[in-house]
Amino acid sequence: MRKPRFDLKRTSSITPGEPPGTIIIDPESKPPRIDVYGIGDGEVHEENDCAPERIAELRAEFRHLWISVDGLGDAGVLTDLRDRLGMHRLALEDVVNTGQRPKVEEYDNQLFIVTRTPDDAGGPSRQLSLFLGPDFLATFQDGPQPCLAHVLRRLREGRPKLRNAGPDYLCYAILDAAVDSYFPVLDAYGDRLEELEDAVTDSSDAEVIARLHAIGHELASIRRALRAIREMLTALLRLDLDLIRPETAPYLRDCQDHATLLLELADSYRDHCSSLVDLHLSLAGHRMNEVMKVLTIIATIFIPLSFVAGLYGMNFDTSASRWNMPELGSPWGYPIALGAMALMALGMLVQFARKGWIRLWRGRRDR
Amino acid sequence: MRKPRFDLKRTSSITPGEPPGTIIIDPESKPPRIDVYGIGDGEVHEENDCAPERIAELRAEFRHLWISVDGLGDAGVLTDLRDRLGMHRLALEDVVNTGQRPKVEEYDNQLFIVTRTPDDAGGPSRQLSLFLGPDFLATFQDGPQPCLAHVLRRLREGRPKLRNAGPDYLCYAILDAAVDSYFPVLDAYGDRLEELEDAVTDSSDAEVIARLHAIGHELASIRRALRAIREMLTALLRLDLDLIRPETAPYLRDCQDHATLLLELADSYRDHCSSLVDLHLSLAGHRMNEVMKVLTIIATIFIPLSFVAGLYGMNFDTSASRWNMPELGSPWGYPIALGAMALMALGMLVQFARKGWIRLWRGRRDR
Amino acid sequence: MRKPRFDLKRTSSITPGEPPGTIIIDPESKPPRIDVYGIGDGEVHEENDCAPERIAELRAEFRHLWISVDGLGDAGVLTDLRDRLGMHRLALEDVVNTGQRPKVEEYDNQLFIVTRTPDDAGGPSRQLSLFLGPDFLATFQDGPQPCLAHVLRRLREGRPKLRNAGPDYLCYAILDAAVDSYFPVLDAYGDRLEELEDAVTDSSDAEVIARLHAIGHELASIRRALRAIREMLTALLRLDLDLIRPETAPYLRDCQDHATLLLELADSYRDHCSSLVDLHLSLAGHRMNEVMKVLTIIATIFIPLSFVAGLYGMNFDTSASRWNMPELGSPWGYPIALGAMALMALGMLVQFARKGWIRLWRGRRDR
Amino acid sequence: MRKPRFDLKRTSSITPGEPPGTIIIDPESKPPRIDVYGIGDGEVHEENDCAPERIAELRAEFRHLWISVDGLGDAGVLTDLRDRLGMHRLALEDVVNTGQRPKVEEYDNQLFIVTRTPDDAGGPSRQLSLFLGPDFLATFQDGPQPCLAHVLRRLREGRPKLRNAGPDYLCYAILDAAVDSYFPVLDAYGDRLEELEDAVTDSSDAEVIARLHAIGHELASIRRALRAIREMLTALLRLDLDLIRPETAPYLRDCQDHATLLLELADSYRDHCSSLVDLHLSLAGHRMNEVMKVLTIIATIFIPLSFVAGLYGMNFDTSASRWNMPELGSPWGYPIALGAMALMALGMLVQFARKGWIRLWRGRRDR
Amino acid sequence: MRKPRFDLKRTSSITPGEPPGTIIIDPESKPPRIDVYGIGDGEVHEENDCAPERIAELRAEFRHLWISVDGLGDAGVLTDLRDRLGMHRLALEDVVNTGQRPKVEEYDNQLFIVTRTPDDAGGPSRQLSLFLGPDFLATFQDGPQPCLAHVLRRLREGRPKLRNAGPDYLCYAILDAAVDSYFPVLDAYGDRLEELEDAVTDSSDAEVIARLHAIGHELASIRRALRAIREMLTALLRLDLDLIRPETAPYLRDCQDHATLLLELADSYRDHCSSLVDLHLSLAGHRMNEVMKVLTIIATIFIPLSFVAGLYGMNFDTSASRWNMPELGSPWGYPIALGAMALMALGMLVQFARKGWIRLWRGRRDR
Repeated sequence: MRKPRFDLKRTSSITPGEPPGTIIIDPESKPPRIDVYGIGDGEVHEENDCAPERIAELRAEFRHLWISVDGLGDAGVLTDLRDRLGMHRLALEDVVNTGQRPKVEEYDNQLFIVTRTPDDAGGPSRQLSLFLGPDFLATFQDGPQPCLAHVLRRLREGRPKLRNAGPDYLCYAILDAAVDSYFPVLDAYGDRLEELEDAVTDSSDAEVIARLHAIGHELASIRRALRAIREMLTALLRLDLDLIRPETAPYLRDCQDHATLLLELADSYRDHCSSLVDLHLSLAGHRMNEVMKVLTIIATIFIPLSFVAGLYGMNFDTSASRWNMPELGSPWGYPIALGAMALMALGMLVQFARKGWIRLWRGRRDR
Repeated sequence: MRKPRFDLKRTSSITPGEPPGTIIIDPESKPPRIDVYGIGDGEVHEENDCAPERIAELRAEFRHLWISVDGLGDAGVLTDLRDRLGMHRLALEDVVNTGQRPKVEEYDNQLFIVTRTPDDAGGPSRQLSLFLGPDFLATFQDGPQPCLAHVLRRLREGRPKLRNAGPDYLCYAILDAAVDSYFPVLDAYGDRLEELEDAVTDSSDAEVIARLHAIGHELASIRRALRAIREMLTALLRLDLDLIRPETAPYLRDCQDHATLLLELADSYRDHCSSLVDLHLSLAGHRMNEVMKVLTIIATIFIPLSFVAGLYGMNFDTSASRWNMPELGSPWGYPIALGAMALMALGMLVQFARKGWIRLWRGRRDR
Repeated sequence: MRKPRFDLKRTSSITPGEPPGTIIIDPESKPPRIDVYGIGDGEVHEENDCAPERIAELRAEFRHLWISVDGLGDAGVLTDLRDRLGMHRLALEDVVNTGQRPKVEEYDNQLFIVTRTPDDAGGPSRQLSLFLGPDFLATFQDGPQPCLAHVLRRLREGRPKLRNAGPDYLCYAILDAAVDSYFPVLDAYGDRLEELEDAVTDSSDAEVIARLHAIGHELASIRRALRAIREMLTALLRLDLDLIRPETAPYLRDCQDHATLLLELADSYRDHCSSLVDLHLSLAGHRMNEVMKVLTIIATIFIPLSFVAGLYGMNFDTSASRWNMPELGSPWGYPIALGAMALMALGMLVQFARKGWIRLWRGRRDR
Repeated sequence: MRKPRFDLKRTSSITPGEPPGTIIIDPESKPPRIDVYGIGDGEVHEENDCAPERIAELRAEFRHLWISVDGLGDAGVLTDLRDRLGMHRLALEDVVNTGQRPKVEEYDNQLFIVTRTPDDAGGPSRQLSLFLGPDFLATFQDGPQPCLAHVLRRLREGRPKLRNAGPDYLCYAILDAAVDSYFPVLDAYGDRLEELEDAVTDSSDAEVIARLHAIGHELASIRRALRAIREMLTALLRLDLDLIRPETAPYLRDCQDHATLLLELADSYRDHCSSLVDLHLSLAGHRMNEVMKVLTIIATIFIPLSFVAGLYGMNFDTSASRWNMPELGSPWGYPIALGAMALMALGMLVQFARKGWIRLWRGRRDR
Repeated sequence: MRKPRFDLKRTSSITPGEPPGTIIIDPESKPPRIDVYGIGDGEVHEENDCAPERIAELRAEFRHLWISVDGLGDAGVLTDLRDRLGMHRLALEDVVNTGQRPKVEEYDNQLFIVTRTPDDAGGPSRQLSLFLGPDFLATFQDGPQPCLAHVLRRLREGRPKLRNAGPDYLCYAILDAAVDSYFPVLDAYGDRLEELEDAVTDSSDAEVIARLHAIGHELASIRRALRAIREMLTALLRLDLDLIRPETAPYLRDCQDHATLLLELADSYRDHCSSLVDLHLSLAGHRMNEVMKVLTIIATIFIPLSFVAGLYGMNFDTSASRWNMPELGSPWGYPIALGAMALMALGMLVQFARKGWIRLWRGRRDR
């Protein structure tokens, strides 16, 4: 049986008693690779595997920068970057500790945003952290983020809107792609539920039950993630901040709309799932009832008959007295016994038909 | 078994990573047919299958226009229309992507409204998009919308209110007809539940269970749609906008009232439905109990009797010793054995009557 | 089985596509009978079966009027009255369409209030519409309304408060009597639940289950009606309106209080009801368990014994070889077989006592 | 089985159609006994069984009064007191009608407070009404109120705080004692649940189920009462009133805190209770399963064996042909038959062990 | 079976009728040991087992103090300390009465905070009270508090932030450590649930059910505690107070964030737990069904066969008439009887295969 996935990473990296802002590196993280995209006047300048020191120069050179950090495995590089970009130490702690809920946090003239994206391979969701300054956007990821690749492709293709708008629009574009990456995941659940729907009505397989429960559990955790994402977007729209320009707001509202639609879809699938679980239980009860009826009908018909047969199988000595099983010697003993048995069986059948357990003739409904 | 219908279209048309405002045409959509109704001074001028270019002329000619677009199958025509009417690109994206939740969106001096109508044939609900400008109302549909036909009929019949009031009243009239189109759908569910109510108490049919679950699931999705529609109407009433004139507000409130009434009805039916499911489960348990009692009574009476009969059917050689089944040779063996069996059966029956499983005499209740 | 009653009338009278304000008369409605009570200076003037034209004269003559309309079967009379009283067309539509939720609506200097009263005979609840103007109160009913009769009796008895206060106090008095009419209905449910409580612990009757489900369903719909009534009263208190004078407010708050108390009672009964359903299920399960235990004990004791008896009932030819059933010829065969059977039965009993299914000696609890 | 208690008195004393403020005396109420405590300058003057006329004199004499009314059986005395203290007629109606929810009501310069206290003997909760004026506090009770006795004892003992602070502090002291009187009641539930916890895991007694359901039901009604009490205290703290002096506010907040703690406790016990009900159901199902397995194992092993034994108990005439039961005459017939039976039994056992129903050897888990 | 732990201490120490602020010492409490840490200019001065009188001197000497009180067993010492620090009497009552919910209370220029920490040994949670003044922080504990030890260690290690920031930062550090101490507790639940997940699908052990219910119950109470803690932190952040300096606010927000994350985790585990309970029930039902099917198949096949065998085991005298069991003397009697039995068995098997209870051939699914 497939294990249901948790949408929040197990939180073993939070150790009580650590001072705040402590950077504890996950030993499985890759060393960070910093790619910087200088954007300005409709042009994009790409600089891969860039050293943190280069950023100041690039900041001076371009209207705005996208600093993409892939891998969180080196505390030194990250704190260096933190100090150069003026990030709050608590923000960097949350970047590294990748079990955060989606949220938005405001520091003076800077926004720190955490969102989560689903893992296509079915693993736990992955954290994507964004740090938005007046002239730059820094993204931090630990593991592949297809939504960043999508936005990068559009940037390289030369979409004028992406190239000309500020870092807030870039931030929106990434958040939007991150939200939209839940659509195929939920679609897959819809497909799986449709398959299971047939399985539920056709069989009482234990596998089906376990899969339904696993899906219900996973949808619950996706729902929780989406709710937090929508809260984050709502908080983002409510902030009265220069960092988000008014013309970007309709786009963010559209993104929030998608999150609502996804939540609704997740609700609908969860509903469907629990409805299937209930249906399964009802049908299992119904099948059990049918099984029991068959047993009861067969047993209650034949047990009395067997008793009669057993009765005349007794070996009392008919010669000892005339009270000892005189039926055995009667010339009509056997036919009468058979007839009595037939009558008993018929009586039972009529009784069962009356209770509606069996249909002896057409026109009556099964009860 | 009828498949329960989803109220939201499967969202496969949203692809993560697409730039916002991308128009992806559903290949099954018909090419758009644009009918324009020029309204002014109590007159209605009808121009069918109109080219987008004609709209500017008609706008100049009439006090206000109703531009009805049926079919969303041509991105060129739609974007042409978008630019001529000054629609936001995100709005047109939502028109084409027909899996939206009912919502209202405000752009400068323009309102974009999405609502959904039920499909009489039992398919998924259909999206109806309205775009309200100061002097026009554009409606976009993909598939038949009887509520538009109703409003059109009233317009052609010459209802003075419809002909004289502005596009906001026309917009209300369409929204109201769209909301009211849920009444017959819910009435049909009420009828179906009433039928099933009898079925539940009369039978333990697996079909009944499956139908109840399907209805419960469908009512849940209708409820979700209605809740979103009511939210949309509430948002519409809260907007402080010149587009909706004060004299139209009581009508919109009435429409919102209908949505509330529908929600209440859907709740009531859902309650009824889950109450029937519970009743079904209780009655199934009760029937199972009855079946088991019959089996138990028959089996516990006859199994011991059969054992006694089997006992005296053993072939121990009575001549080998006087301890070997002396009963068989006794002159009263058979009557005594029969009497003992009768006593055993009677004892069992008394026991069952005491437990309340059977009624041997009047005046006791079945437990 | 008694049908649960719906608290909202089936809504077949709303036809999608009708223009707003359309008056569709229910063919079963009686023709309206208009009684007018002129109130002023502590006196009451009663004029029965009054024509709509008389109202203007009476309005001029008395300080304020109570116009009681019984029966909604004539669109002409009602629209005539509407125009004379200055009612909004949407308000009259809601008067005639008697499936409205309780609500309050404000038109300029006029209030339109809908409430519902329970039917003592157990039918669906009935709509009572009130239309409050500065110097009159119009009430519209379709079927008997005992709460109006109560208020009328107090008015005729000459209660000074009722005769001297304005139409807002009269409106309060009617609303209060309408709310209070739910008390005997809920008390009756309390009594019925108390009866069923004994029935649940004493029997596993299918009738009890069905009645509990019906009561639960009815309480749910009463709860919905009461919630809407309380909302309506809250809305009434929140309106900042000259129509409701400040000295009437404490009375309306008291009325709202009664609605809250009724809601609480309905909740308490619903809780009690679902608690009884759960108890019933638990006890049914317990009884089933007991039934199964009896069957299992009897069957598992006697089936092996019967097998032994059957074994020695086999007809193998003992003379064919000395391996063929030598026990049959043994002088101690029968006593040994009986003894073995007794030991088997005893062993089983000890086993069952260990599992706690039966008590062989005092001091052990049944498990 | 103990009857669960309702926390709200059955409301038969509210008759629809009565004018507001009607005083309907419960015939079981005692005649009122009025004790007045004059408080001022750290002294307490006690005057028992005081006539209403005396109150004006005492009011003039002392800084503030506590007027304690025990018994609500005389409408005349109560309305006399009402008029002397300037109470609203609706307030006195609520005093007499002792089925009110806890609430606070504000009249000009006077507060009317209703709270409820649990009955130690397990009966329904009792209403305690407080009427707070600028220089007096009147309390109305119908039946014993230990919380009043507690406060009186502290007053007599000469607590300076109680004697010097105003009537608002006295009011707080009484409300606090009333709230705290729920602690022993909830503690008793905690004890009962702990007892039942053992009973649930040890037995499947029907008594245990019924007691759990009764406790759950009672806790639900206590919860409702506590929620209303907390709402009342919150409303009291929110009122911007001279009657409650600022230095009393922290005490009231502490009292509200206790109510929250009690609510939390009631929630926790209710959770525990429903968890025990679920556990009981699970364990009952588990026991049923075990019972069924025993039956199935015994029956499926012995029924086929009995069939074989029955087969060779048939009386076909072996001499009629050589096809008629030649096994019976074979010298190895009996041993072979026994062997076959043993093999069949063993095969079944192996099958059951494979399904995990029985353990034939160590190291396998029961499934 | 392990007892589930209650997160709130049983409240027996609240006696109704006690005057507010009464200090009732728990007889099991240790005598208080007061350690004072004088902090200022980056230095820490530690004074263990300090007398209350010393505090005034130390307050004068150092910029700010941490007064750590361990043990609540002496009312005299505590009231002495209360008066010296200017604590409200209600605050000290709540310190001693260690069953408080987490909360924050504001007195003039002082904050009183209650939080709770989990007990690693699995006992009930422990109360930690903090009293924050402008130049000191007093902590009160009754039993070990590892979170205090963590903060003390960091203070001794000379963390500049802790040593230089005011008592509000110290207060944050302690609250943060207290919140974070829930992480390992929840992680342990996660591990236990993962173990149980395998156990649920593998076995129907009663132990598993009981453990799942206990975990669900414990998670519910942890959830309640965390919710109260988060509310407390939210209230702390909302207070507009000089005691909490603006630069401490982001840290408190981070702490609140951790509480939210913990709540989410607890929710997720509770979801998982109840999902496992449901899965267990479904699988138990499935196993029951399988058991019943086996019984039914075996019984319905062999019971009729046994009847036939019993039939020909009857001892009717074939010589009495030619109607008496002529089959016995027929030369083909036995083979025909065997054949008939085989046919009956086969017919049953085909019937069962049709119903989908058994698979006679490949390619059919089990129903």
